Amino acid sequence: MDVIEIIRAKRDGGELTPDQIDWVIGAYTRGEVAEEQMSALAMAIFLNGMNRAEVSRWTEAMLASGERLDFTDLSRPTTDKHSTGGVGDKITLPLTPTVAACGAAVPQLSGRGLGHTGGTLDKLESIPGWRASLTTEEMRGVITDTGGVICAAGAGLAPADRRLYALRDVTGTVESIPLISASIMSKKLAEGTGALVLDVKVGSGAFMKDLDSARDLARTMVDIGNDHGVRTVALLTDMESPLGRRVGNALEVAEAVEVLSGGGPADVVELTVALAREMLTAAGLTPGEDGVKDPAEALRDGSALESWKNLIRAQGGDPDAPLPEAAESRVVLAPTSGVVTRLDAYQVGLAAWRLGAGRARKEDAVSFGAGVTLHAKPGERITAGEPLFTLHADETERFDRAAEALEGACDIGAEDEWTPAPLVIDRLA
Amino acid sequence: MDVIEIIRAKRDGGELTPDQIDWVIGAYTRGEVAEEQMSALAMAIFLNGMNRAEVSRWTEAMLASGERLDFTDLSRPTTDKHSTGGVGDKITLPLTPTVAACGAAVPQLSGRGLGHTGGTLDKLESIPGWRASLTTEEMRGVITDTGGVICAAGAGLAPADRRLYALRDVTGTVESIPLISASIMSKKLAEGTGALVLDVKVGSGAFMKDLDSARDLARTMVDIGNDHGVRTVALLTDMESPLGRRVGNALEVAEAVEVLSGGGPADVVELTVALAREMLTAAGLTPGEDGVKDPAEALRDGSALESWKNLIRAQGGDPDAPLPEAAESRVVLAPTSGVVTRLDAYQVGLAAWRLGAGRARKEDAVSFGAGVTLHAKPGERITAGEPLFTLHADETERFDRAAEALEGACDIGAEDEWTPAPLVIDRLA
Repeated sequence: MDVIEIIRAKRDGGELTPDQIDWVIGAYTRGEVAEEQMSALAMAIFLNGMNRAEVSRWTEAMLASGERLDFTDLSRPTTDKHSTGGVGDKITLPLTPTVAACGAAVPQLSGRGLGHTGGTLDKLESIPGWRASLTTEEMRGVITDTGGVICAAGAGLAPADRRLYALRDVTGTVESIPLISASIMSKKLAEGTGALVLDVKVGSGAFMKDLDSARDLARTMVDIGNDHGVRTVALLTDMESPLGRRVGNALEVAEAVEVLSGGGPADVVELTVALAREMLTAAGLTPGEDGVKDPAEALRDGSALESWKNLIRAQGGDPDAPLPEAAESRVVLAPTSGVVTRLDAYQVGLAAWRLGAGRARKEDAVSFGAGVTLHAKPGERITAGEPLFTLHADETERFDRAAEALEGACDIGAEDEWTPAPLVIDRLA
Repeated sequence: MDVIEIIRAKRDGGELTPDQIDWVIGAYTRGEVAEEQMSALAMAIFLNGMNRAEVSRWTEAMLASGERLDFTDLSRPTTDKHSTGGVGDKITLPLTPTVAACGAAVPQLSGRGLGHTGGTLDKLESIPGWRASLTTEEMRGVITDTGGVICAAGAGLAPADRRLYALRDVTGTVESIPLISASIMSKKLAEGTGALVLDVKVGSGAFMKDLDSARDLARTMVDIGNDHGVRTVALLTDMESPLGRRVGNALEVAEAVEVLSGGGPADVVELTVALAREMLTAAGLTPGEDGVKDPAEALRDGSALESWKNLIRAQGGDPDAPLPEAAESRVVLAPTSGVVTRLDAYQVGLAAWRLGAGRARKEDAVSFGAGVTLHAKPGERITAGEPLFTLHADETERFDRAAEALEGACDIGAEDEWTPAPLVIDRLA
């Protein structure tokens, strides 16, 4: 096999053979294909694409570069969710214990945030004592005892993806649907889940800004999952506006606990229930039948909250300890009265990031207390001079640039100028 | 400036700004842009192209990465030729002394061969004592004394191109018209010639196999030259068949001397005269008028041969010494009688390469005596059982694989099956 021949084949619009894909991923992992050769191939893939067979094999080859977890010996069926990332997207927090409370097991490997979207592990680490890094044996113990586990992916899972992702990050080859799909799916397949629900976000705060791209990404990932024997379903969900009323690490944990306690913002509840039902169904369980609890019921009857506490405790966290709060806050007032007709997710995410909730570089620390509280969501009425946003940060110097990010983020108009948009836009299976 | 932003701009089909081009070439030369970033950019350029302004600026930036020679103080106008490379293409050898004999000065920086096309320096090095490496001062001395100089480009000329070429070679990004054009032209502009004639080969033995690509390459290079104040003209010339009757290093030197002595194959003479007239004209001289000798006359009257001897002696060579000969030879006989209707340049080049005339890796040595003698050229009659090719090599083991390369290289048919093709196909200015 010759790497230059493989690069040329893709460069000239050809289809890579299974042998070529296996060889190039293997040789790259072993260090026999140079970074500059892989980046040229990544750019050729970016511009000329890969078909279903190629993406599926590419995923398989990355999966084969490392270990694959196996939870088939658990007494419950496994099911997981992956979100492509959004602003205020704390859904994993209420979702995992809810699904566990309904009878499935959730082996959730999560990541940290980079840029304007937050990371699930950063949010959970705001809980005193909670640990993200578990050995495979610890992970198995937690999921066996509590029905769920949320932790960092070990270095042994899809190491080819880890190296390729770092390369794509510095070579302008991130936003490629085949490469994104293979990257996400190789990790999800390595984590050993039997079923998978993809929450593909679309809108200003999402990676995919338009519906066509989001649908294309969802289709590609669903096909990869099903090609590999994992029952995979995708929901396309709205990310024009932030999810919930709080954006930031500890702020979102508090909101997740509200939802688990039977309250919380309607959109977070709606999405949690929708995704939980999909996860259970994909795992072969029927919510509300045959002794399988419906997720809405689990939120109401306290069983999801109980499951959450068990899950947090099992990873060293104290679910009853006070959460960190930011030292400083500033209120932004509504400039006019009316109905909120638009609230831009990207701008809110950027503000939270500038307040310290996110990181600019991988090695940066996040502020647990920083973030934005939203006092009005689209469709809600507000009066001039009332609080519109509360900004939270550890240093007052952060407020000006965060407030700048929010300029023009919120439109306030007449009631008939607001059109309600569905949260779940489409479903692909 | 951010390299990822530059990669993305080209990836998404945009035009790079002059500042972006200057910065990326400069930063790459200084080692601030990584190889994997430059290869991703090269692939994006390969697939999305560069317009005239971008290619011109890219060339300028590579030129600015090193020194630029200046021959404006010579008493004669300078003019040079660049060939994109072919099989049996020894034209630089008779051409440089012929143009010098007619009154212009030729500062010719040449390269070594890699693959199936030979290199001018390899050919000249078969002359006992001849040296390819000269300092800038030696180069200036030789051209002042003899009117010509053929030597290796120093490391100080367009160093960005040197590094980028090595990168393109291992990343499948060689065959890009903008990148090829900028690479060739940055070196030709750095060598300080006032006029330039490009011999763009087209056909089986050439880099460009079809007329459209060759025309595109010629157009791009002519535009770059003229944009930089160098009077530049291109001839598109046929490379379906090898040039002349001999392919190999010393074999081609001997044939060049035949041409300089007023004999030699008609095609080599025709192309030498055509290119020499273009070079003189581009330098502002009119062949056959105002005391400027016509190149055909210089070949006939011995002045070109005299100029050749001076040029070889000035670089340490003995023009009268016997040339190296291969130790072994094998004759391939014509299988049938008739007229040669086709003789494939690529296959002949490959055979010469397998006989030892070329190198597989940059560090390999070439055999000076190895190569192929062609006993019949297209349009010529041959009788079954007469010699068709003579193979020359230092080791007999090389003959079988060389003979294999020549299988099917030559078609012999009826006289009316042969259509003469023009040697000079087109001219661009």
